[in-house]
Amino acid sequence: MPSSGRIHHRELARKVVPADVAAGLIAPGSTVGMSGFTGAGYPKEVPLALARRISEANAAGARFRINVWTGASTAPELDGALAAADGIELRLPYQSDPVSRQKINDGTMEYIDVHLSHVAQLVWEGFLGHLDVALVEVSGITEDGALIPSSSVGNNKTWIDQADAVILEVNSWQSADLDGMHDIYYGTALPPDRRPIPLVRPGDRIGERYLRCPPEKVVAVVETFAPDRNTGFAQPDQSSTRIAGHLIEFLEHEVARGRLPAGLLPLQSGVGNVANAVLAGLGESGFEGLTAYTEVIQDGMLGLLKSGTLTVASATAFSLGPDAVTEFNDSARDYRDRIVLRPQEISNHPELVRRLGVLAMNGAIEVDLYGNVNSTHLMGSRIQNGIGGSGDFARNAYISMFMTPSTAKDGAISSIVPMVSHVDHTEHDVNVIVTEQGLADLRGLAPRRRATLMIDNCAHPDYRPMLHDYVDRAQSGAYGRHTPHLLDEALSWHSRFVQTGSMRTER
Amino acid sequence: MPSSGRIHHRELARKVVPADVAAGLIAPGSTVGMSGFTGAGYPKEVPLALARRISEANAAGARFRINVWTGASTAPELDGALAAADGIELRLPYQSDPVSRQKINDGTMEYIDVHLSHVAQLVWEGFLGHLDVALVEVSGITEDGALIPSSSVGNNKTWIDQADAVILEVNSWQSADLDGMHDIYYGTALPPDRRPIPLVRPGDRIGERYLRCPPEKVVAVVETFAPDRNTGFAQPDQSSTRIAGHLIEFLEHEVARGRLPAGLLPLQSGVGNVANAVLAGLGESGFEGLTAYTEVIQDGMLGLLKSGTLTVASATAFSLGPDAVTEFNDSARDYRDRIVLRPQEISNHPELVRRLGVLAMNGAIEVDLYGNVNSTHLMGSRIQNGIGGSGDFARNAYISMFMTPSTAKDGAISSIVPMVSHVDHTEHDVNVIVTEQGLADLRGLAPRRRATLMIDNCAHPDYRPMLHDYVDRAQSGAYGRHTPHLLDEALSWHSRFVQTGSMRTER
Repeated sequence: MPSSGRIHHRELARKVVPADVAAGLIAPGSTVGMSGFTGAGYPKEVPLALARRISEANAAGARFRINVWTGASTAPELDGALAAADGIELRLPYQSDPVSRQKINDGTMEYIDVHLSHVAQLVWEGFLGHLDVALVEVSGITEDGALIPSSSVGNNKTWIDQADAVILEVNSWQSADLDGMHDIYYGTALPPDRRPIPLVRPGDRIGERYLRCPPEKVVAVVETFAPDRNTGFAQPDQSSTRIAGHLIEFLEHEVARGRLPAGLLPLQSGVGNVANAVLAGLGESGFEGLTAYTEVIQDGMLGLLKSGTLTVASATAFSLGPDAVTEFNDSARDYRDRIVLRPQEISNHPELVRRLGVLAMNGAIEVDLYGNVNSTHLMGSRIQNGIGGSGDFARNAYISMFMTPSTAKDGAISSIVPMVSHVDHTEHDVNVIVTEQGLADLRGLAPRRRATLMIDNCAHPDYRPMLHDYVDRAQSGAYGRHTPHLLDEALSWHSRFVQTGSMRTER
Repeated sequence: MPSSGRIHHRELARKVVPADVAAGLIAPGSTVGMSGFTGAGYPKEVPLALARRISEANAAGARFRINVWTGASTAPELDGALAAADGIELRLPYQSDPVSRQKINDGTMEYIDVHLSHVAQLVWEGFLGHLDVALVEVSGITEDGALIPSSSVGNNKTWIDQADAVILEVNSWQSADLDGMHDIYYGTALPPDRRPIPLVRPGDRIGERYLRCPPEKVVAVVETFAPDRNTGFAQPDQSSTRIAGHLIEFLEHEVARGRLPAGLLPLQSGVGNVANAVLAGLGESGFEGLTAYTEVIQDGMLGLLKSGTLTVASATAFSLGPDAVTEFNDSARDYRDRIVLRPQEISNHPELVRRLGVLAMNGAIEVDLYGNVNSTHLMGSRIQNGIGGSGDFARNAYISMFMTPSTAKDGAISSIVPMVSHVDHTEHDVNVIVTEQGLADLRGLAPRRRATLMIDNCAHPDYRPMLHDYVDRAQSGAYGRHTPHLLDEALSWHSRFVQTGSMRTER
């Protein structure tokens, strides 16, 4: 029987069981749609219980694996535990767990890296196969059996709709004041029945407060009291602060030129320390009346909401550090009218990103001379995390900006390379590149002009001579001079890093 | 004074001048927005007169160059003549002229290759600079001074709106029955004022019949009587016919599996001989009640409209061969209710492509083992044409399909390579690859599984052993095994072709 006080529906209250009983309902070979987005709102106990069950089965010689679909990244209790148990056959659409990453890159776990706005429709379309179980964390259940979502929405609506059976975790650690913050849009459909999505401002509410779920579809309810991942963000370092400075100067310049309104356009920001520094910088700039239409609300964005610089933020999830989560949980009621959490198919929807004119700010692993961006792979083969929502925003943004420090590994890697070793965002989708060295505005520039600007404004001075040398020789020796490349050298920097531990040539 | 009988507005009739007078109004250094899309509806006489003027000026030691913006490709009388006169400083967003291509690839002409749906908004946003002159072909002028569009719409609305001055060519070779076929949507805006675009079926008319243009903005009107480019299509060869067969079998299979409705979803088709063969194949299949939401209506699509297989087609331009254009001009009135020509920002709009669930079928130059597609560059450096609208459709399609013969240059080039030498469509945006060898359905497959399928289903048998060898060695020797690549070999096939004239290793 429930003890959390969060389950107000009689029939569902009778379905409360321990986590290991719920985990026992997941059969080998199942495909399980789990909640969770950037370490928020993922199930905390059933995955751990399932991992124990899988470990025991595999130790006894069985092959117990499942397919795991989520919103985005989760936490060690989910991805880490299941991967360590060799329990994941196929994982999608995004993850950032170190154990999983190792399994994926040693070739023992399959992973598909999908635009986050595409996942739900791929499932409805039937293109990814059948969904057996939805395993979803909620923050409560109403008297009517409606589900009060948790600190992320992600693909939960789709999982609950599409799965044969639903397992709920009701997490009473989550603030009860999340109730009222969500907007679950039920107007999506498959073509030819799709209609315009009636959202024209970041704060518009176009859907319902709760997730619908027929109670008879719920096979188990587990009560939990457990915090989200809540990884802390690093204090902005000098490099991040300089990136933020260049970016803010650019935005001010665009306003001065009349190409952006004074209150900008809705901001989208990737997650991470650089992004957090940019948000902190915006708080110290003179901008006012900003809005956000983004995936994730992280510490810096919560700070902007608190200070009033940001009037409203739309997202699909939180990703807060320990201090920010305490602040949020203590005053969720105050934030409730200015934060909207939506399904990720809506937070990242190309129709809405384009309509709103989002200013997209995302991180890059590396960028090449011609403006192609690699967000996912180290040295062409080893995946870091995944493309996440960056492509949803970059392609349809008003201005598509990518940020990275100009070097990594203490200077052994240049983030500006002759040719990226993997392309996630093509030259057609990239407007602005920012490093701590400066900013390159690539709009309206033919490829060779982009190359010069990238070297002079963004590359680290240590690598500029090598890059100029490459470009000079490519411009005279390439097979064509529209996008001049030397095929035998284009990836040689990556190769040198793999062989010697540095992209630098010997001096 | 007008003699064509197509100019019914008094004030504009008084502005009729010879082409060389109109060309004299275009100053050196101007940016000129010209009509024209896939060789349809481009201005026929003023660019030629301008090219003569530029040649004379340049011969006399001046530097007379202009920037040329269009809808897409034009014809020898425009791109060819201006490029031959060294009159183009910068060209965008797409072109296919051989003289221009040579200038671009020898590094003497600048070219920016842009998603066709993005061009208009980039101009409104002010990101590409100021537009001095609009030079637009129309098929007539009404008594009220409204412009009856020609055989393409392209970016004409934007050019007329944004330019300081407008020069019109009134081409009486175009069928007078084009009148009523166009739908010019004036509901676009810059954010934060954008609203949903109210189109939910391919045939919906949401705009106006004519282009608006204040008569006082028109500085010259030139009367012409000249055909469009009207390049003929080759009869489908064995390779194209087999590609069409595989594709149609796939679509039938999707219908049988319940993943597509019996009348499919709106078709988008790139231009070219392979695409034409696919359309011909659809005409011989059992499909009925089809629709098209595409860029271009080419011969095969006109045939489907004539036979009734296609009930309605939406596009931004025609691209017809000599026989088809005669057929069309003779019976434009019969087609008028079933063809809608729109601005390219609408025909290619991501909001609409996604909503309608378009089935995108585009050509590729090469595809790699992991599903990345190169649509633009030969051997990484030399541009062929441009990305055109393929990215607009591929990213937001219901199913994104790419087609190519498995080899080129009599087998010296494999279209399936270890790593593409340029990426236009990333693995995230590519669902299905078709060659004459077969079809690879990449949906729901992790990268290594894609590689196996690409080799076995799509690669030419002559190249399969080399591809398998690469994959086998990459899977054991790569820096990571998620997307295994050998950095020193990934582009070696292209390099070998440049050096030896063939991608084959010596045998």
